[in-house]
Amino acid sequence: MKKILFLVVLCCLFINKQLVAQNDNLVIVIHGGAGTWDRALMTADKEKAYKDKLNEALEAGMKVLKEGGTSLQAVETAIKILEDSPLFNAGKGAVFTNEGKNELDASVMDGKTLKAGAVAGVTTIKNPISAAIAVMEKSEHVMMVGQGAEKFAASKGIEIVPSSYFYTEERYQQLKKAQEKEKAAQEDTTGSVEIDRNYKFGTVGAVALDKFGNLAAGTSTGGMTNKRYGRVGDAPIIGAGTYANNEACAVSCTGHGEYFIRWTVARDIAALVEYKKMSVEKAGNEVIMNKMVKVGGEGGCIILDKKGKLSMPFNSEGMYRGYLRSSGEKSVMIYKDK
Amino acid sequence: MKKILFLVVLCCLFINKQLVAQNDNLVIVIHGGAGTWDRALMTADKEKAYKDKLNEALEAGMKVLKEGGTSLQAVETAIKILEDSPLFNAGKGAVFTNEGKNELDASVMDGKTLKAGAVAGVTTIKNPISAAIAVMEKSEHVMMVGQGAEKFAASKGIEIVPSSYFYTEERYQQLKKAQEKEKAAQEDTTGSVEIDRNYKFGTVGAVALDKFGNLAAGTSTGGMTNKRYGRVGDAPIIGAGTYANNEACAVSCTGHGEYFIRWTVARDIAALVEYKKMSVEKAGNEVIMNKMVKVGGEGGCIILDKKGKLSMPFNSEGMYRGYLRSSGEKSVMIYKDK
Repeated sequence: MKKILFLVVLCCLFINKQLVAQNDNLVIVIHGGAGTWDRALMTADKEKAYKDKLNEALEAGMKVLKEGGTSLQAVETAIKILEDSPLFNAGKGAVFTNEGKNELDASVMDGKTLKAGAVAGVTTIKNPISAAIAVMEKSEHVMMVGQGAEKFAASKGIEIVPSSYFYTEERYQQLKKAQEKEKAAQEDTTGSVEIDRNYKFGTVGAVALDKFGNLAAGTSTGGMTNKRYGRVGDAPIIGAGTYANNEACAVSCTGHGEYFIRWTVARDIAALVEYKKMSVEKAGNEVIMNKMVKVGGEGGCIILDKKGKLSMPFNSEGMYRGYLRSSGEKSVMIYKDK
Repeated sequence: MKKILFLVVLCCLFINKQLVAQNDNLVIVIHGGAGTWDRALMTADKEKAYKDKLNEALEAGMKVLKEGGTSLQAVETAIKILEDSPLFNAGKGAVFTNEGKNELDASVMDGKTLKAGAVAGVTTIKNPISAAIAVMEKSEHVMMVGQGAEKFAASKGIEIVPSSYFYTEERYQQLKKAQEKEKAAQEDTTGSVEIDRNYKFGTVGAVALDKFGNLAAGTSTGGMTNKRYGRVGDAPIIGAGTYANNEACAVSCTGHGEYFIRWTVARDIAALVEYKKMSVEKAGNEVIMNKMVKVGGEGGCIILDKKGKLSMPFNSEGMYRGYLRSSGEKSVMIYKDK
């Protein structure tokens, strides 16, 4: 009898240790886009506003994880906060298309099941990340575009808003400015007129590791200012802007979407981790700081593996980013040094 | 003087040998979808019609390669023939959506430059593969969807047709049948009513190797019968349905698109070749016959590397497929044994 009791106690201690060990290693990593303000234009007030919002998203995501939520729930929670903020190019605050509309894209992936969901070109969904999750969880499909995606989201109770919800004066002025510059560039034959790069590649994203040891990744964007022809970037493309696989890592990208699609950046980083046994740091550097730099693919990404190792490489001037561990270890930065 | 002459002759012989060697290894591989007719329903006449059309596409693609055209041109030529045929689920002959429309997707990738182009959800472009190439070559984008893509294609001289061009009585009857079955399944609580799988995963695709040693891949589809909500499958997704990289291989997929997106099938096969140094045969089997079979991801793909080695794995009952080498070696098959 004593022996059995002893074994039961031992088992309890072991199970408890496992749970504690798992709980100890909760991590959330987020980005608010590689298209930061040029350093010269960044004021102390602006910087504080961005960092405060990144902090809020990290804390909210970690709260979900600490309460036993899944990495997917943490990713959704963090991204919704960034989507709802006009500071970032996703949800409220999305940039305008050439036609003066806001067309949003988002995607999500679950590292345990490799289930994925994405929406592209939607104009009335308040939180595209939640619509992407609905596509993943409540349909047999992975990707839906345009009005079809909106119809599906509405049928699943996702919040629909009038498209005017996405209007912000600042983004509208950016469109006007971009169009004026474009016109000047077309009339100019010297090629000396530069397109404004501020905000060009803004996107938000999150990756997280939960107490079950599962990874998830999500990305949401308003695309490129002045974009035309129903252009879709990397954010809603599984393997380009978003990828998660417990066997490798979770990745969310931000940058010049066309390069990220062509180089299947998120999947490539995960493939280097999975097949070449690279660390997330080495794999991220190989793709973002080597392959992308060589071809002029501006941008960055956040990467997280099952052990909680993370990396946030970027080859642009800055990338709004941060991470928070359940231990309390935290970092929120915009440029390389601060 | 004699020495110089001797060297010049040697050089000429060497260069000539190189050119001949390159020309000797032209290859085109095509597929017409993994969604073949159940064997029991395939008649000798139908089989002949399919094989004749596959032969025509292979011969036309090889003609382009032999005349010094690029792998991209050969891929376009072969795919256009399959798109123009009502036999295959792409272009003319595309299946109908739930709303009774034909929504087409296509993508293309150049293995030398990693340039890529894609269109999705287009309803008036006669040859979506040509529109995908226009996006790649004549825009700074990779992917365009819906009316925006159509507007762009029209502006670049791509042939536009009324959407009624895509109507075929046979496909329309398939939609009606699918909808009746769906209704019966909804009313049936035993779960015994099966959705008709004939044509469900039809797609066409091609990969080629040209005299310059460059690879290209292309894929075009009409999607899934009775599809809803602007669903997009793997065909227009770079890394899922289509991928080409001279350093690895060229891949075009056909099958249950959702699984092919989630497993980034085309990129995964290329990653196994690139990073694990697998042969195209081993990499194709690992993904199509192992990973996909384990999760129920029905379908197949065609794979070709820079040395001309090819593989055409599929886990479905059949896959319309064939290849032709400049040596004249040829194979056209539908099922595993014929």
